[in-house]
Amino acid sequence: MGMTITEKILADHSGKKEVYPGELITAKIDLAMANDVTAPLSIKTLEKYGIDRVFDPDKVALVLSHFVPAKDIKSAEQAKIVREFAKKHKIKWFFPEGEGIEHTILPEQGIVVPGDLVIGADSHTCTYGGIGAFATGVGSTDLAYALATGEIWLKVPHSMKFIFYGKLKPWVMGKDLILHTIGQIGVDGALYKAMEFEGEAIRDLSIEQRLTIANMAIEAGGKNGIIAPDEKTIEYVSARAKKPWKIYQSDPDAQYLEVYEWDASKIEPLVAWPYLPSNVHPVSESTHITIDQAFIGSCTNGRIEDLRIAATILKGKKVHPYVRCIVIPASKSVYQQALREGLIDIFIDAGCVVSVSTCGPCLGGHMGILAEGERCISTSNRNFPGRMGHPKSEAYLANPAVVAASAVLGRIAHPEEVVSLEELEVST
Amino acid sequence: MGMTITEKILADHSGKKEVYPGELITAKIDLAMANDVTAPLSIKTLEKYGIDRVFDPDKVALVLSHFVPAKDIKSAEQAKIVREFAKKHKIKWFFPEGEGIEHTILPEQGIVVPGDLVIGADSHTCTYGGIGAFATGVGSTDLAYALATGEIWLKVPHSMKFIFYGKLKPWVMGKDLILHTIGQIGVDGALYKAMEFEGEAIRDLSIEQRLTIANMAIEAGGKNGIIAPDEKTIEYVSARAKKPWKIYQSDPDAQYLEVYEWDASKIEPLVAWPYLPSNVHPVSESTHITIDQAFIGSCTNGRIEDLRIAATILKGKKVHPYVRCIVIPASKSVYQQALREGLIDIFIDAGCVVSVSTCGPCLGGHMGILAEGERCISTSNRNFPGRMGHPKSEAYLANPAVVAASAVLGRIAHPEEVVSLEELEVST
Repeated sequence: MGMTITEKILADHSGKKEVYPGELITAKIDLAMANDVTAPLSIKTLEKYGIDRVFDPDKVALVLSHFVPAKDIKSAEQAKIVREFAKKHKIKWFFPEGEGIEHTILPEQGIVVPGDLVIGADSHTCTYGGIGAFATGVGSTDLAYALATGEIWLKVPHSMKFIFYGKLKPWVMGKDLILHTIGQIGVDGALYKAMEFEGEAIRDLSIEQRLTIANMAIEAGGKNGIIAPDEKTIEYVSARAKKPWKIYQSDPDAQYLEVYEWDASKIEPLVAWPYLPSNVHPVSESTHITIDQAFIGSCTNGRIEDLRIAATILKGKKVHPYVRCIVIPASKSVYQQALREGLIDIFIDAGCVVSVSTCGPCLGGHMGILAEGERCISTSNRNFPGRMGHPKSEAYLANPAVVAASAVLGRIAHPEEVVSLEELEVST
Repeated sequence: MGMTITEKILADHSGKKEVYPGELITAKIDLAMANDVTAPLSIKTLEKYGIDRVFDPDKVALVLSHFVPAKDIKSAEQAKIVREFAKKHKIKWFFPEGEGIEHTILPEQGIVVPGDLVIGADSHTCTYGGIGAFATGVGSTDLAYALATGEIWLKVPHSMKFIFYGKLKPWVMGKDLILHTIGQIGVDGALYKAMEFEGEAIRDLSIEQRLTIANMAIEAGGKNGIIAPDEKTIEYVSARAKKPWKIYQSDPDAQYLEVYEWDASKIEPLVAWPYLPSNVHPVSESTHITIDQAFIGSCTNGRIEDLRIAATILKGKKVHPYVRCIVIPASKSVYQQALREGLIDIFIDAGCVVSVSTCGPCLGGHMGILAEGERCISTSNRNFPGRMGHPKSEAYLANPAVVAASAVLGRIAHPEEVVSLEELEVST
């Protein structure tokens, strides 16, 4: 019987010819990742059990991304624990403050490659599925076990397939396809499932936008999100890979629990209203909503392509006087590239605040927390109550073009309201 | 009898021909300033007394500088209070997050000019003395009174004179002259005194370095620091002033409580060790001290000239692997200028973290707080226990060249150890 791409990766990593949904396996991991919030818990767990090693320092990534540069003494202490652990154990992939968000850095630097099995103590570890890796988030205790042994227990997930056929309308991005998916199936619609995305609209997407899609698989409860590699993936990976990679594809007769098929050409830019990523509405039905803040960044939409599209909107415009627009490139490389391309100038001229690379306000961390009653439109991934600040604040999720347009108009706005398609063609 | 520059400004603003040290006066203010930490307290005081106006919205500056972009819900609420007050009362000089630190913005944008009487609910309001204004910090309640009435009660301070003759050695900056002063007279050596600086070495300094000197007058307890305007001041102000200015000079027979005279050519780059700005040592006696963090920024040394000198050191170099170097341009204009000059590229290439303009770690705010036992060398102004983080962390104060050199070597370092004088001449 055929296997899905997810099943094939898991089989190969557990020394089996085949695996079946529901089967418990012990898999070898190619990379174990944690950040400044989760690594200290894993490190303390290792200490508790008297384990003073990692299975392979070349297969561990520790990234200071969430509360850095340290926002308070507690976050400084957390970072210090990770820093000292990384130094002591000669962790190969240690990224201190300012290097960026793990989910942006690891694919961008070719530290994660197609076919990898990656676990990370962060729910958005599923991002790496955008380049055809199996990647999933685990708790800090599970990560401690993995750090010690190089292995992880997994239940092989059932797979679901999401096919997007047709061509995307202008201003519709990968973000809208995943918001559409979550809107259709709900935040538990893919609970512990492998979410496999395919179809013409997916193939037409850049790798960066595919990463956005995989990134938000967890918002539908998915164990992982995955997009089979194609020539775009290979081109992306060839330029960066720090190790060999392996291309897996689903068999034609692979089994799926459910298959959804959608006409991508009918999808508009979407906005997830509070307080669930599944509370999805077209932008056209959201334009009455005024905003206090706009945030462009995060592991979901803080890559260079996201900044480029935002800059297309903001170039020569001004952020609405009652809005603060916070732009946070998701990695140092993204920041440097944005500098070279003049995007940072565009943002600052428009009145945006540009921060050092960090998760920032996405998780209510720092660099743009919301007060009571404030409303933010954000390129990030979650809009639960209090996610970005006060329990009575509101976060609306959208793609970077929509967020940039909203920053200019002071209310949720379709990019067409700010930049005409003719202008878009000239500038891109 | 002659008057000092400070006495003349106070006399003019209180409608008197002469004032005398110790005299209580009611003075009209040209500008009342508060930030996101202090303005909410002033606003609540106004509310408590049922006062729903400001004396003149064109003479009020409210700057969101300390905990912005909001680092947590509390700081978001503080910023919101100020934002709404500024909107309601049509405050002319409202600067939201990202615009920078008040003490950098106000002189740089010509909102404070020579001869002004400025009070601010921030201790480093004394900065504006660098361009010949009388400026002093007050509490939030005093500021509320000033916001309501446009007046302030003041006791006319006695004046002290600090004369620096001679030429400065290379790598010696305004910061070193004020550290020398504080080291000589102690942190209460000028308690409630007007600190007047003059002499060849002062005249040779740029306006930016003079602002550094006046900025730290409060660290010796001074009521204000002041440097009489000269042709450099007039050139600086002419390019920016948003209103007329008035040049005051001390009379030759003005009275000083004390006069200090120092040979500036003998002063080396200095470092104030923990836990007082007066605990001053030459860099040459500090090179055994390893550091975890280097901070270039703050109202003391975050202006463009400071970034230029730091970039001179960091160009083509790498920050030491065990050090994080945080660079925070003190205003958006400084940031933009640094972008244009390629300084931001230099910092990022060297491995620095560059943040949006904010007070940041200077006051233990955010963007680089220290953990227990960590040591930071900083261009900022205070090194009290816990000032930049954990009570058991340590802050060392120095000029931006020393801080940049220390970032490269991982220990406190003289700039000469990193860049030779020949290299300096080529690059500047």
